[in-house]
Amino acid sequence: MFGLESEEPSYEQRSEMAARMSERLGVELVAPHIPGAGALQLRAPRISPPGALDGFCRQDTWDRAYHSYGHDRTLHGPFGRYPNPPDVVAHPRDEAELEAVLEWCSDNGYCTIPYGGGSSVVGGVTPPDDVGPIVTIALDRLDRVLEIDEVSRAARIQAGVFGPALEDQLRPAGYTLRHFPQSFSGSTLGGWIATRSGGHYATNHTHIDEFVETVRMLTPQGWWEARRLPGSGAGPDPNRLAIGSEGILGVITEAWMRIQARPVFRATASVRFGSWQAGYEATRHVAQAKLWPANLRLLDPVLAAAAAGLDGTESVLIVSFESAEVSQRPQLDQALEILRSAGGVAPEEEVVVDDAGGTTGRSGAAGAWRNAFIPSGPGVTAGLGLIANTFETAITWDRWPEFDASVREATERVLREVCGGGSVNCRFTHVYTDGPAPYYTFAGRYVSGMDPVAALAVIKAGVSDAVMTAGGTITHHHAVGREHRPWYDLERPEPFALALRSAKKALDPSGVLNPGVLVDPMT
Amino acid sequence: MFGLESEEPSYEQRSEMAARMSERLGVELVAPHIPGAGALQLRAPRISPPGALDGFCRQDTWDRAYHSYGHDRTLHGPFGRYPNPPDVVAHPRDEAELEAVLEWCSDNGYCTIPYGGGSSVVGGVTPPDDVGPIVTIALDRLDRVLEIDEVSRAARIQAGVFGPALEDQLRPAGYTLRHFPQSFSGSTLGGWIATRSGGHYATNHTHIDEFVETVRMLTPQGWWEARRLPGSGAGPDPNRLAIGSEGILGVITEAWMRIQARPVFRATASVRFGSWQAGYEATRHVAQAKLWPANLRLLDPVLAAAAAGLDGTESVLIVSFESAEVSQRPQLDQALEILRSAGGVAPEEEVVVDDAGGTTGRSGAAGAWRNAFIPSGPGVTAGLGLIANTFETAITWDRWPEFDASVREATERVLREVCGGGSVNCRFTHVYTDGPAPYYTFAGRYVSGMDPVAALAVIKAGVSDAVMTAGGTITHHHAVGREHRPWYDLERPEPFALALRSAKKALDPSGVLNPGVLVDPMT
Repeated sequence: MFGLESEEPSYEQRSEMAARMSERLGVELVAPHIPGAGALQLRAPRISPPGALDGFCRQDTWDRAYHSYGHDRTLHGPFGRYPNPPDVVAHPRDEAELEAVLEWCSDNGYCTIPYGGGSSVVGGVTPPDDVGPIVTIALDRLDRVLEIDEVSRAARIQAGVFGPALEDQLRPAGYTLRHFPQSFSGSTLGGWIATRSGGHYATNHTHIDEFVETVRMLTPQGWWEARRLPGSGAGPDPNRLAIGSEGILGVITEAWMRIQARPVFRATASVRFGSWQAGYEATRHVAQAKLWPANLRLLDPVLAAAAAGLDGTESVLIVSFESAEVSQRPQLDQALEILRSAGGVAPEEEVVVDDAGGTTGRSGAAGAWRNAFIPSGPGVTAGLGLIANTFETAITWDRWPEFDASVREATERVLREVCGGGSVNCRFTHVYTDGPAPYYTFAGRYVSGMDPVAALAVIKAGVSDAVMTAGGTITHHHAVGREHRPWYDLERPEPFALALRSAKKALDPSGVLNPGVLVDPMT
Repeated sequence: MFGLESEEPSYEQRSEMAARMSERLGVELVAPHIPGAGALQLRAPRISPPGALDGFCRQDTWDRAYHSYGHDRTLHGPFGRYPNPPDVVAHPRDEAELEAVLEWCSDNGYCTIPYGGGSSVVGGVTPPDDVGPIVTIALDRLDRVLEIDEVSRAARIQAGVFGPALEDQLRPAGYTLRHFPQSFSGSTLGGWIATRSGGHYATNHTHIDEFVETVRMLTPQGWWEARRLPGSGAGPDPNRLAIGSEGILGVITEAWMRIQARPVFRATASVRFGSWQAGYEATRHVAQAKLWPANLRLLDPVLAAAAAGLDGTESVLIVSFESAEVSQRPQLDQALEILRSAGGVAPEEEVVVDDAGGTTGRSGAAGAWRNAFIPSGPGVTAGLGLIANTFETAITWDRWPEFDASVREATERVLREVCGGGSVNCRFTHVYTDGPAPYYTFAGRYVSGMDPVAALAVIKAGVSDAVMTAGGTITHHHAVGREHRPWYDLERPEPFALALRSAKKALDPSGVLNPGVLVDPMT
């Protein structure tokens, strides 16, 4: 699991890291003391589960504190803030138990929060204030691959399985889902589906959406499960309304997922460009040539310098192909032809073709990038005396250069205002024919006496405003949750919000499911 | 346009074709006389548009008769049946006119039918009985490509443009949408989006869904238009609820569509297999290798004999790659390696690689297949004294062999019952990693005195029952309309139907938009 106290760095480790970061940033950082979980005093539970639910419901301090947050526990938790824990945490072991607890919640109007891996960085599983009793439904007991259909290359998988356990269960038969979001180790299949997770593939099928054959979801009005089909044109796709629904329509229990044979053939290169612009123009050409590389990840000069040891003017692109069936040398050669024509430099030692099932790309610039320490969340960095975080979006190519300039400018401005300065860098995590999905990382100094949570909220609001003003999406793959709501409301069409709110009202008439996420309750 | 009287074969032409078909089938076919449109007497219009709408509304016999049907006009129209024509046919020339006519309909409770090319074969634009006054909104005046974004490879296109006119407007700049459904010449962009049309590509991005950046749709509650984005993870995708909505939520007026450079590099082969099973097993291997050919179309032995001159035991697969940027020789070589390992025979003269922008695949078996006369609709064939039609579906590979056997058995049985016998054949029009989209064509003899419409309905019901029982979808790309409703109702999850009905009720409170399609009105 993600963000456990046992996985956090100790005070000594944090002090050492803070000293290193101080040197790099030229600013004195001091790691604060963080209290342990043992000292917690939570609000007393306001409800107790009826006897029939006793066997799988818990109310102990640890379980309630753990389920008070998603990944933002690393932000709030270390500072001891657990003002609104769930009253009950249910761990149903089968669908009958899930039905029983959802019915109990729905009948009594208890706020119900479906909980997968708890990797949300947007408050998607954080109980809202002022909703009365709260029941969090943890899916962790539904953690099996139930069936593998080798002929169709699909598997029926329970929603509560974490990434590594899922792959462990597919591996013996030679298969993989090949969906590796950054949260892989601490997130679940159900969470990926509920939040439209972005995974392994940088082009073509990037979101979990594309790997779903059909979703099984319990709503207060019964089971939602479309036929298992490779394709259909029968009305709006029911799966596409469940995918991304973030727990407001029902609880996802399992899905038939498209799987694939484990890759044997790999081909990878890292390609340097003289500037950021040269890098992204070349990346666009490869994306539009529809060669569909598995990886097409571009680092801006700042990041390329920090992560791959380049000189601070060059950008670097990692392009990789993989296949279980055929050598990827021709595909890589075609991509390299395009990239070199666009000014890319790809020394032969940075081009690795493996037709024997080995592991490529762990050396050279690509390897350095993969292995580099890239701050990815507020946890470690808050403990280091830094205010750091990431945000991701997507934008069409025609607007991209202006978008990038205005978002960087706004990020630097808000960092100056809040932290007296800071830095921002960018990489592309996913690339489409019609535009990139840029992923920005920013860091500002923790100023003594600052409320880090409030400071981060101000910075996030500033960058979110900039992203929306410049035409992007508030999230390419981090979901909406509660924290992105104000900007999501600017993004989605008003009639769609009305449709979604009406659908929710019909499926969840008492409005118990994850209230405040995506839509407001019907009045 | 599709199905115009002027495009129908004359009595003489039909008699000649009937004689040819008689010889081929060994059964005497007699072409019936069909009355002309001039003699039509329609029900008098029950309403008249207010003065403000006068400029773009028509009530003449031809317009009302034409808009009484979709492509099934070729079935009903020739026999003179126009019992339920629209009272008014509106042809709005801009969005303001569309807003005005939709408001008039919504305020007065007039049944409102959005009408694109009228190529529906499932009654999707046929006014329902017993709904009072009917206004059909034809989109034919909204027929322009408004904007081309060459950098992002996308274009803003009005919904009412027909396929050929759309391509004509993209061609001068060197682009193409490359969406060629069978109805291409007689259908529109808006229709494709509203019905989840299946097009050119046999693998990877097969449905129009994948080419939509964002849809603009007028609902009675206002404009539905999401931001133009290459990708997003912000809640359920609003576009995916508009796509496939078949006119029940709103009227699609335009869309930003992903376009592409016109292909220069092509590589095509036709590959023969000793049996149907050998053909589809090999096809599966290529699909699962993720080489993403543009074409991967398999004909069963019956069709391969009729269309490509093979011996009636062999199946034939046409596999084609295309690209604007790079030679497709390596991709075709990789596909051929897989296909030959699977027992395929691909003589060198059936393998054509063109790196110079020519047109390949017009000769050999692939050419014969492309150019062959394949009965595709009831129009011509009803005029020939045949009861013929097609149906398409999709099914996962694990269930495919049993599915195919049971659907063929059921089709032959119902043809025996209704026509005293008949034939059925199959091809794959689209292929997914997890299953094929088979397309069946059947033909039975028109028995003297038979009501051809009723006979076809009995046959269609029989095959639809078989498809649903065997686990398929009622439609891969022909949409639901009114004729597929009973089976669609078995296919979609009940909570999704509730969600969709509630969304429609919220967006279209007076229930005027295409009533009876996809969902029943809320009670």
